[in-house]
Amino acid sequence: MSAASSPEPVSIPASERVFSLILAEGPISRVAIARRTGLSQAAVTKLAKPLLAAGYLEETADRERTGPGAGRPASPLQIRAEREFFVGIKLTEYHLIGVLADLRADVRARLTRDLSRRDPAGTVTQLAAMVDWLRRAEPRFHERSSSLGVAVSGDVDRRRGLVGYSPFLDWHDVPLAAMIGEATGMTVTIENDVKALTVGEQWYGAGAGVADFAVVTLGQGIGSGLVLGNRLHSGAYGVAGELGHTPVGGDEPPCRCGGRGCVEAIASSEVITAEVRRATGSTSLGFPNAVRLAESDDPVVKPIFDRAAAAVGRAIATLANLTGPERIVVAADNRDLAGYRGFHDEVRRSYTQQAFGSAGHSDLVFVHRPLDAWARAAAVIALQARLAR
Amino acid sequence: MSAASSPEPVSIPASERVFSLILAEGPISRVAIARRTGLSQAAVTKLAKPLLAAGYLEETADRERTGPGAGRPASPLQIRAEREFFVGIKLTEYHLIGVLADLRADVRARLTRDLSRRDPAGTVTQLAAMVDWLRRAEPRFHERSSSLGVAVSGDVDRRRGLVGYSPFLDWHDVPLAAMIGEATGMTVTIENDVKALTVGEQWYGAGAGVADFAVVTLGQGIGSGLVLGNRLHSGAYGVAGELGHTPVGGDEPPCRCGGRGCVEAIASSEVITAEVRRATGSTSLGFPNAVRLAESDDPVVKPIFDRAAAAVGRAIATLANLTGPERIVVAADNRDLAGYRGFHDEVRRSYTQQAFGSAGHSDLVFVHRPLDAWARAAAVIALQARLAR
Repeated sequence: MSAASSPEPVSIPASERVFSLILAEGPISRVAIARRTGLSQAAVTKLAKPLLAAGYLEETADRERTGPGAGRPASPLQIRAEREFFVGIKLTEYHLIGVLADLRADVRARLTRDLSRRDPAGTVTQLAAMVDWLRRAEPRFHERSSSLGVAVSGDVDRRRGLVGYSPFLDWHDVPLAAMIGEATGMTVTIENDVKALTVGEQWYGAGAGVADFAVVTLGQGIGSGLVLGNRLHSGAYGVAGELGHTPVGGDEPPCRCGGRGCVEAIASSEVITAEVRRATGSTSLGFPNAVRLAESDDPVVKPIFDRAAAAVGRAIATLANLTGPERIVVAADNRDLAGYRGFHDEVRRSYTQQAFGSAGHSDLVFVHRPLDAWARAAAVIALQARLAR
Repeated sequence: MSAASSPEPVSIPASERVFSLILAEGPISRVAIARRTGLSQAAVTKLAKPLLAAGYLEETADRERTGPGAGRPASPLQIRAEREFFVGIKLTEYHLIGVLADLRADVRARLTRDLSRRDPAGTVTQLAAMVDWLRRAEPRFHERSSSLGVAVSGDVDRRRGLVGYSPFLDWHDVPLAAMIGEATGMTVTIENDVKALTVGEQWYGAGAGVADFAVVTLGQGIGSGLVLGNRLHSGAYGVAGELGHTPVGGDEPPCRCGGRGCVEAIASSEVITAEVRRATGSTSLGFPNAVRLAESDDPVVKPIFDRAAAAVGRAIATLANLTGPERIVVAADNRDLAGYRGFHDEVRRSYTQQAFGSAGHSDLVFVHRPLDAWARAAAVIALQARLAR
């Protein structure tokens, strides 16, 4: 038997739940926090104390109505947004997308750059320059930021700071966190990009307040993240949620991962675009235009999207059959796909057909999450790591 | 959004972990229990107290060596096996398999009967007769048994005592626990059969001591159970681990569940047997003989098993990609399949090929679990429910 690392410490402990609730809904009183989290009021007061002492939270002077006509001082808590800033970078095959976010996870600066070199050292150099630029946008950004989160697709070991395998970048065993720490002087947390996005949905997105949910991402890659019992599920060996490599297609087509019939090899935006180009003869057609053609019921293009949607639905059914989440958030990075109802309907139909019994009851929610949102989620990973220290 | 039932209370709380550890390894001292569970010695003492008071545990007079030459009274704890008995029934499409087990989960009586009627009322009548026979084997069995566990394949809601959907039996929304309680006068707990087997593996089998593991069952059906963080994972709507309906085959073949290309429609023992009969022309060949032909490298039969093994490996890879367990216990109900190395190798090859990055590190363990073992696991479910009361 090979040795397993212990599950990664990517939990949502009570203090984080309190903080993320204030982030999503503050100002909010301790009483309301206790009600919403199920914690005792004494526990909330105790958890808020060090956050107040560190200047992360502050009390507002507002009064809160507790009954008709009555008002007593409840000193609702809110986040001191400018107390600290966090940098988040999403690294893709072609681009670096960076944001600087405040403590409320609001984006204050952003930058997208093409990636001119894809080897680890070259990537780190470009990434460090982007971080530097973001932090220099305002003096206080530089002064009050020391935590950086980086989201990378693939097999990422957050605890060890290691990218075990990233197919897009063709990286194997790259000690990315240490390399970036060296180049930037910041405290660096790396995370699988879909896991990062999932934490973002949990803190302030479509998964807020849901104990068991999944995120399925549609774009150049297809992935998923799982929150089980309010906790991001990481897997004993650091991999979990690799939905893209669910073999829904039988033996065909081969996937870049070495497997066969993976949903990603059928329904990624690149594969769909290539098929639409082949079918229409329009060799420069882009993905957004392909979506629009399908949406207008183009007889050549629509079946290609239907087939992709059916594959996605089967993969989602597999996810639901195995893990039974309460809600499944389907996040498309393309705005047109996120708004294309016919595609959603076909995903839903295929999911329902393949789901087993009450595994078909999961609530499917379609949202748009552009690459900026992924970078913002990387900043939240940095914030999360900061709170844990 | 549809309303989700709260996750089912199928946890392993501390008292259960203590009890199951004593079951697996007793007599064992409180010190050793504390060391093995990570609980404090005071907590172990506190948890053991009510179990001692209820007569479920007893202290032995043994001394335990604590150092070279030294011996001090450690009063190791052991289970009073005959304090109470539990009945467990595994219900299949064709058979009822029943056991009566003692508090140590050792089987003391067993019976297998053909199922002559498969409708709910007819099944309950036959099941009640079997329970009665098992309890009457010895007077003390009858006197000291009041808890019955029943394991059924399909979508089973343990909390509500409801079989939502069982494809083998073609049942929909059957309030089975209440019906059996009425017919037997016992306290009845029903559970999905694979989840029951998974709890058995956790308590005394190949999953003992492993925080995150999966069980994959091979037989007439193909299923899986998941333990995550020492806790049986049930899914927000009661379904989780339905591995059999993972669509590894593309569009073909159709499955009885209504989906397509499900691993169960490719690799169940029935499907394999049917294919071997067709390929060899031996219309009465049974599954065990088919396994033996494959094992002897029969050029017609072996490829059929290879194809089934490849499908199983792909389904296991999907499970590992999505949930990343530390260990995967592959339990075959047929002894020959459980011992067929060539099949294991092909499952492993296919799993490794389709697994993503370190999701390929899970430890695959092949074991034999005949139907008796499933009935025994059903008795453990009754015992577990008894301890929770």
